[in-house]
Amino acid sequence: MASDLVAGVDLGGTSMLCVVADAAGRVLAEASADTLRGKGYEPVVDQVLEILEHAANLAGTRVSDLEALGVGPAGSVDPETGVVHVAPNLGWNEVPLGAVLRKRTGLTTAIDNDVHVALRGEHAFGAAKGAESAVAIWVGTGIGGAIILGNELWLGNRGSAGEIGHMVLDPKGPKCGCGRRGCAEAFASRTAMERDVREAIKHGHKSHVLHLMKKHHKERMTSSVIERALKKNDKVMKRVLRDAQERIGDLAGNVINTLDPEVVVVGGGIAERFGEKFVAPIRKRALSRLLNQAKLETIRIVPSKLGAYSGALGACVLARKRLAAGAGAGVRHRR
Amino acid sequence: MASDLVAGVDLGGTSMLCVVADAAGRVLAEASADTLRGKGYEPVVDQVLEILEHAANLAGTRVSDLEALGVGPAGSVDPETGVVHVAPNLGWNEVPLGAVLRKRTGLTTAIDNDVHVALRGEHAFGAAKGAESAVAIWVGTGIGGAIILGNELWLGNRGSAGEIGHMVLDPKGPKCGCGRRGCAEAFASRTAMERDVREAIKHGHKSHVLHLMKKHHKERMTSSVIERALKKNDKVMKRVLRDAQERIGDLAGNVINTLDPEVVVVGGGIAERFGEKFVAPIRKRALSRLLNQAKLETIRIVPSKLGAYSGALGACVLARKRLAAGAGAGVRHRR
Repeated sequence: MASDLVAGVDLGGTSMLCVVADAAGRVLAEASADTLRGKGYEPVVDQVLEILEHAANLAGTRVSDLEALGVGPAGSVDPETGVVHVAPNLGWNEVPLGAVLRKRTGLTTAIDNDVHVALRGEHAFGAAKGAESAVAIWVGTGIGGAIILGNELWLGNRGSAGEIGHMVLDPKGPKCGCGRRGCAEAFASRTAMERDVREAIKHGHKSHVLHLMKKHHKERMTSSVIERALKKNDKVMKRVLRDAQERIGDLAGNVINTLDPEVVVVGGGIAERFGEKFVAPIRKRALSRLLNQAKLETIRIVPSKLGAYSGALGACVLARKRLAAGAGAGVRHRR
Repeated sequence: MASDLVAGVDLGGTSMLCVVADAAGRVLAEASADTLRGKGYEPVVDQVLEILEHAANLAGTRVSDLEALGVGPAGSVDPETGVVHVAPNLGWNEVPLGAVLRKRTGLTTAIDNDVHVALRGEHAFGAAKGAESAVAIWVGTGIGGAIILGNELWLGNRGSAGEIGHMVLDPKGPKCGCGRRGCAEAFASRTAMERDVREAIKHGHKSHVLHLMKKHHKERMTSSVIERALKKNDKVMKRVLRDAQERIGDLAGNVINTLDPEVVVVGGGIAERFGEKFVAPIRKRALSRLLNQAKLETIRIVPSKLGAYSGALGACVLARKRLAAGAGAGVRHRR
């Protein structure tokens, strides 16, 4: 018997989270796992099925009684075919994730990238609720983006709209992971911040960051490390974070000068952890960059509201959208 | 008797052009004038009425038999109220142009800014014909922009979407007319190019530009001066133009990474004069900046096709759109 419940999976390179939710976005159950990396996609698909089954059971139902499944992997995805083209953090290339999951679950399955689904989540139930237009700026390992216009995700001509992390903010800026120079991501992602901290230390500036990473067994400068460093009043960390906030502010300003959306949602690990404290300097800088200085109070530049749940809940929204559009594999939901 | 004809006026700070056109965008008649500057808006309104009457007569009809009037002034405009907030090149502040023209002509009158109407023109009849999504980059005294998504002009939450000329391309860049630093306009407008040429000459580089301006009685480095300098193989002019094209390419790349539109139309005096020769280096640079390198052949980065008529024909499109939406003053045509 159908349950009117759907499941959504936030599929990251470090961990995955599955929620089972009703149409109002209430989470009835959840399950998570640390993502198995470097062994191809099959073991990861097994993990997704395990946490899906676990969450369904916790919600008092079975996978086969769910209405649909949505998944948001971190990477470049074709939502029409369900193929994950490239997912660097998962180590994937051309993985037909949608088809595999559909086959193994028997469910209508929809796939889109992590930031697209996160913005869908924030738009349906979180920081962008009620907004007709919204832009997501997701700051993590890289900087991802997504755009909602007229209440619909704007995917663009080739399905690659929203790649605002690769907006050039200075063509002579630092080298980016994409091979170019001066992308927003190369200035202000967590990876870029860690590079700048290491660089400062190499130049003789004192910082607790490397010590904190070692002490807490972190290979990377995670947002928890950033928080601990700031608590110790780490000058290098403060300066690097402030510089990143200015660049994200420039990025947000560029996006608003271009699209003039109602809401800009800033998400990702640092935004989740620090909320308004992270976003306030970004907002200040962004607003200062706007040509039109009228009605600034109508622009909301805010931290994500669903925190760790935006991706999984957004995947639920995507699943329901696919249901509404018809369950076929080749459904176009590009605008 | 109604004629099924509309009139459109491109209202610039230097000159104005009125066309009378049918629904297919055929220009039946046109009339133009040099804009009277510095005497307030009334004499300019008189001029608009004169060229409107002249063009209507040439088309074998009368103003009162036209269906509607569209006007695209260079400046910041509220299309809902028909008020021109600021038009630096016209020297206007808070001019109720729509209401005045409606009163004096008796026609349904629609107003929007020059680049918005130019993109409407290119979308209906020119370089962006048939495209569902298009972005205009208009290079002149400043750099203006406009965005069409889902076949509709995207105006944004406050009506100020498309201000891509003020996208920051380097926060340490040159001072912009808007008071900020490093906007695209501050790098690559005709005004910025003239500044760079004068700067180079001041630093001892040889250039024909100032001599050519004097010889042809130009106060500013117009596109005709640029053409003459290039014909003389002027090294300073070539370098300055190349630098500007790179920056416009960065701007176009940023816009495509953000919106992934089908078409980017590059317009304005220089683009009109040089066409593909101006746009080719811009295209090359823009495509090199895209994160998604797939299907590049589906992205059209092209010069405007209607040349000097894009604004006036676009104003005709705007007029017809207003007719279709209902002729009231307060019609919302924001998406």
